Amino acid sequence: MSVQTLTAQSTIMGFSDEAAKTQLQLEANYDKLLNANNLDEWMKYLSAEPHHVGSPYDKKVVDFVAAKFKEWGFDVRIEKFNVLFPTPKVRLVEMTAPTKFKASLTEPPVEGDEYSEQTKDALPGYNAFSIDGDVTADLVFVNYGIPADYEELERRGISVKGKIVIAKYAGSWRGIKPKLAAEKGAIGCLIYSDPEDDGYYQGDVYPKGAFKNEYGIQRGSVMDMPMAPGDPLTPGYGSTDDAKRIDISEAKTLTKIPVLPISYHDAKPLLEALEGPVAPSSWRGALPITYHIGPGPAKVHLKLEFNWEQRPAYNVIATMKGSTYPDEWVIRGNHHDAWVHGASDPISGLVALMEEARAVGNLVKNGNKPMRTMMYCAWGAEEQGLLGSTEWVETHANELKQKTVAYINTDGTGAGFLGAGGSHTLEKFFDQISKSVMDPQTNVTVFERRNAAQQVSGGAPWSHYELGALGSGSDYSPFFQHLGIASFNLGFGGESSGGEYHTMYDSYKHYKRFKDPNFQYGVALAKVAGRTSLRLANAEVLPFEFSHFANTVNNYADEVTALAGNLRKQVEQHNALINNGIYALANNPKDNLKVPDAKANVPHFNFAPLENALENLDKQSRAFSKAMQNGVSNVKNKAAVNAILKDMERALTKEHGLPKRPWYKHHIYAPGFYTGYGVKTLPGVREAIEQGEFNDVEKQIDILASVINEFSSKIDKAISLMK
Amino acid sequence: MSVQTLTAQSTIMGFSDEAAKTQLQLEANYDKLLNANNLDEWMKYLSAEPHHVGSPYDKKVVDFVAAKFKEWGFDVRIEKFNVLFPTPKVRLVEMTAPTKFKASLTEPPVEGDEYSEQTKDALPGYNAFSIDGDVTADLVFVNYGIPADYEELERRGISVKGKIVIAKYAGSWRGIKPKLAAEKGAIGCLIYSDPEDDGYYQGDVYPKGAFKNEYGIQRGSVMDMPMAPGDPLTPGYGSTDDAKRIDISEAKTLTKIPVLPISYHDAKPLLEALEGPVAPSSWRGALPITYHIGPGPAKVHLKLEFNWEQRPAYNVIATMKGSTYPDEWVIRGNHHDAWVHGASDPISGLVALMEEARAVGNLVKNGNKPMRTMMYCAWGAEEQGLLGSTEWVETHANELKQKTVAYINTDGTGAGFLGAGGSHTLEKFFDQISKSVMDPQTNVTVFERRNAAQQVSGGAPWSHYELGALGSGSDYSPFFQHLGIASFNLGFGGESSGGEYHTMYDSYKHYKRFKDPNFQYGVALAKVAGRTSLRLANAEVLPFEFSHFANTVNNYADEVTALAGNLRKQVEQHNALINNGIYALANNPKDNLKVPDAKANVPHFNFAPLENALENLDKQSRAFSKAMQNGVSNVKNKAAVNAILKDMERALTKEHGLPKRPWYKHHIYAPGFYTGYGVKTLPGVREAIEQGEFNDVEKQIDILASVINEFSSKIDKAISLMK
Repeated sequence: MSVQTLTAQSTIMGFSDEAAKTQLQLEANYDKLLNANNLDEWMKYLSAEPHHVGSPYDKKVVDFVAAKFKEWGFDVRIEKFNVLFPTPKVRLVEMTAPTKFKASLTEPPVEGDEYSEQTKDALPGYNAFSIDGDVTADLVFVNYGIPADYEELERRGISVKGKIVIAKYAGSWRGIKPKLAAEKGAIGCLIYSDPEDDGYYQGDVYPKGAFKNEYGIQRGSVMDMPMAPGDPLTPGYGSTDDAKRIDISEAKTLTKIPVLPISYHDAKPLLEALEGPVAPSSWRGALPITYHIGPGPAKVHLKLEFNWEQRPAYNVIATMKGSTYPDEWVIRGNHHDAWVHGASDPISGLVALMEEARAVGNLVKNGNKPMRTMMYCAWGAEEQGLLGSTEWVETHANELKQKTVAYINTDGTGAGFLGAGGSHTLEKFFDQISKSVMDPQTNVTVFERRNAAQQVSGGAPWSHYELGALGSGSDYSPFFQHLGIASFNLGFGGESSGGEYHTMYDSYKHYKRFKDPNFQYGVALAKVAGRTSLRLANAEVLPFEFSHFANTVNNYADEVTALAGNLRKQVEQHNALINNGIYALANNPKDNLKVPDAKANVPHFNFAPLENALENLDKQSRAFSKAMQNGVSNVKNKAAVNAILKDMERALTKEHGLPKRPWYKHHIYAPGFYTGYGVKTLPGVREAIEQGEFNDVEKQIDILASVINEFSSKIDKAISLMK
Repeated sequence: MSVQTLTAQSTIMGFSDEAAKTQLQLEANYDKLLNANNLDEWMKYLSAEPHHVGSPYDKKVVDFVAAKFKEWGFDVRIEKFNVLFPTPKVRLVEMTAPTKFKASLTEPPVEGDEYSEQTKDALPGYNAFSIDGDVTADLVFVNYGIPADYEELERRGISVKGKIVIAKYAGSWRGIKPKLAAEKGAIGCLIYSDPEDDGYYQGDVYPKGAFKNEYGIQRGSVMDMPMAPGDPLTPGYGSTDDAKRIDISEAKTLTKIPVLPISYHDAKPLLEALEGPVAPSSWRGALPITYHIGPGPAKVHLKLEFNWEQRPAYNVIATMKGSTYPDEWVIRGNHHDAWVHGASDPISGLVALMEEARAVGNLVKNGNKPMRTMMYCAWGAEEQGLLGSTEWVETHANELKQKTVAYINTDGTGAGFLGAGGSHTLEKFFDQISKSVMDPQTNVTVFERRNAAQQVSGGAPWSHYELGALGSGSDYSPFFQHLGIASFNLGFGGESSGGEYHTMYDSYKHYKRFKDPNFQYGVALAKVAGRTSLRLANAEVLPFEFSHFANTVNNYADEVTALAGNLRKQVEQHNALINNGIYALANNPKDNLKVPDAKANVPHFNFAPLENALENLDKQSRAFSKAMQNGVSNVKNKAAVNAILKDMERALTKEHGLPKRPWYKHHIYAPGFYTGYGVKTLPGVREAIEQGEFNDVEKQIDILASVINEFSSKIDKAISLMK
């Protein structure tokens, strides 16, 4: 297979023909070094016991990984940060009316999985960064608890003010649910996994199958990460030992109300006791009940107390100094901490990263030092809000901005199809990689397999690998959206679904039965991520390119323009239906539906500055491609050109950041303010439109245009150096 | 309200200005006569006991209705037909492996509804015209049991040959499920009501709410009605006492395999015991299980024996002779037989019809005799396959074809929005009616309320009432699709949903709580159907018109043309994915999915004959409108014109009928061969394309073109008489 690959791809972006030959040989050697048994063995060890931040076994994990990196020839340091990490002291959910019921809040052991018996050091089900609280109130079912759901509640005249809401997981990142509930006046929030989204509806449940059984509880952070991740007590700077910490009462990213996740076993009696209107059909899940909204008569008592302690978050940083450009860094990372055992999340990704590092170390021992510095990082305290990576990035921000070429992230990974998101300035580069690694189950490249899935699900065939846009949810965020470092997030999936995520059941046993039993996709990931790192480390000219980026941003611009137009039409129709009394006529008087409120009309916006900036970007990206067309060998001033290319992504940031959340500085990609992990591209403009802040739209268009223009002028500068 | 209506509509189609004034006054008087209390009282009596065909209480119902008609001044006759009517002797469903379970097959009484305790004379849950059978086999879950579901099974390499299938109700008319299962080689069929489609997922279950509780069983006929309704032993002719009957073994419309409906209470253990692949997500229902397909290990024993007896089906025919055109008939009908008590189905519609007849009788007594003959009919044995109406229509076919102007059908009705289907030659006429009756809950016409619902659900506003196309499922079929008599099917709904349909729980109690408690929509239906009948009876020129029909048929033609084009594209894409190995690559090897078979390419068809016929139809319909533009008063030879107009719909039939089913003679509308009640417009052409019978498409286009051309030349004839 390697031979075929070698023949097919004799040129690699960033390499001269000569250098490409060497690089391809290097990659062939690299591939041969990879050994699936290592991944298996390490996963077994690393997920043997619960190892959340601050736990004894997490320190063992850290020491093990550090020792391995050292053994493989890396300079290793462990950087410790002291981060706020609340753990539960009291967790109580009980129904006090119309009948009594106390939620068990426990995940019992299951047959055949001895890990599920290890309750020592295992964190129970809870949401980190919920505040303490002791509240009793009528319950209201709010579907996913996203903005559209509150519009439905309003139509039914139902307010959550002074109430406790119960929301389904899914539909948004979990932290949005208590955030929005609090904005609407709720005093407490329960989140449960409905079996339709995450349970028996999806497939056989654990231990018979991979899916969530009735007791599974999805843990997770509810920190306001769309505002900023990282330690809430050191906003924007590293939580080193001596850092000044704000008081908890000043922390902005804690929830405003107490929130707890529960299983569908515990949710069923509560939902079953609700009366009031039947929930709209799109709200209903797979519990064998009629879903009602309430409020009440189910009355719930929710009591939560946490230990608000600081715990050490350890980052393992392993460095292999570059031979030629030691001050140009290619950083590869995956977190090591878990909610419980975390075989899948994060160990499946971590063991692939370790195997990459081992192979790179081996290559170096055999004389193949990378031209640039390669760093392999194992992050701590990711689960609570990217704490380890964020504090590290904030601590080393200036150096990282100066030196980093790219950051390549992985996290939990499975089997099936290559999923990759990242900077579109590296899309063409990554396309070559996706076409140079073979799928372990079929006789085609991972690109071709992904493209097949794409087509069978009804999509148009891809000519190149189309990178997704990155939102949030793993350790790339501080690199990418805070510092403006070109990033990737890589993994395999689609044939390894299950319900183990953030539960007691994310075990080695579960992984081996249902995910990637022979670690063949783990090895494939090591090949993809390894090539990505090695090519970036060894490229003569950094393989950035701007036509893919320009096309992508043009598509985003078309989207936001269409968004404004569609919203304008929708609002006009909506208001016409109200003004003509149509809503009132269509209502069933028995349902007592309120006529919805009229919405503000959407004005026409001046998109011209953005359109002009995009014209300019197109022009410059074409000029760059033309300047590169004679190959890397003909590029002059390579070092100076590389220095500019390395910094290109930074040009897409503004120091003032995005509206309401200055930590997020990237103006092309951000997690959604009201969706969480879900990405919003061109976030300043898009969210101003979506959130009805029409006075800000043109200001954001101007900012975006200036960002793009600055980016284009940097391309111009690179071109002039190249000639 | 009447005043407003009178002012708004001073002209009525078919009436001179002078005559319109009289007619509107007549309708105002008619409205005043309607009394909701009558509907209530009659429903209470008519649904007091189970009254299926042949039951003692059904005879009481017949006698009661006949006596009322007589009392109101009609000539009444009761026409009896002897129809085959199988009733269950043995009903057994048991699981023999992997565990034992015997289905209860019963609907226990519920609190607060004394009717549910009346088991005497109540038919248990069964499907009429299932054959006898005693089969034991592995079970296979086939979703709705429609053609697309069998494609999914094939992809999984699952055959139902020699198996018993279990299908969900919904997705098609019930009779399609055993028909298709038998075609695929199954030896038995169970049909159950999944709580997602018809149970707690929809709302609170009976008796707390209106929806189907776990024991509710939907009875119903599984006769092959898309082939032909009516007594299977007298195909195409009336089952009078002395009619020759074919042997049961020759009957073509019985099922080929035994079939029984069961409740979701009884279905759950069977489905839960299935293994094999997890069902595709679109197949899964709302039971708290993981839906598997099988086959087995659930093994089911299904044993069914029926009494294959002939029973008397009584039709009550009440006639009010026309003053001017006694040989032009306007027929109004609703069936009287029920599966059990049938408060909603059919009594809610029947009591509206009776109140109409009472009011008409009263008007006649006061000197307002209709110009044409009006007939009010209460059909028997509808539930088993439109037996009463079909046998009557077959018996009187020649006279009906000569004399009938239109047939206006109702059946079970509820509250909310006017639902009307019918002949588009009467669409413009009906539009005026829908704009002349007020909605009982709001201060607008039933048209405006329906139009509001239309818009709130995202549709474009209607300028006129858009009649649905009629498929099958009630007594209009023999009139409309067999004889070509212009027909309507009318009812209200949208605010009275429930799960009582064809169960033990369709009682007076249920209707009064959840449907139309004060019978205000029953009265509204009497107003709509009464106007429809009275205007047709009194029109100086019959209010047929052809531009609406032409537009509608043009739309249907666009649909079938697009259907062919889209199918061609889909098949090309499908085959390309197969030929390029894409399906194989996208498959999860663990799922063991077969690559689907390639499909026959769709040739291009010559639609020109249809297009030319439609051009001609457009021209003639415009000419007709022009000829009418000076009003009814200026139409010459009214009697001769009326005689042509009365017969127009007949021109849309061909004596040879549709392919494979000569009983269905209408070439514009038919129930779907593989959908059942669901309509297929331009059925000859559409089904040839859908069913891949590409060699027949152009032949069907030619037939359709000739039908339309004949229709157009009749318009031309009418025009020449009018001038």
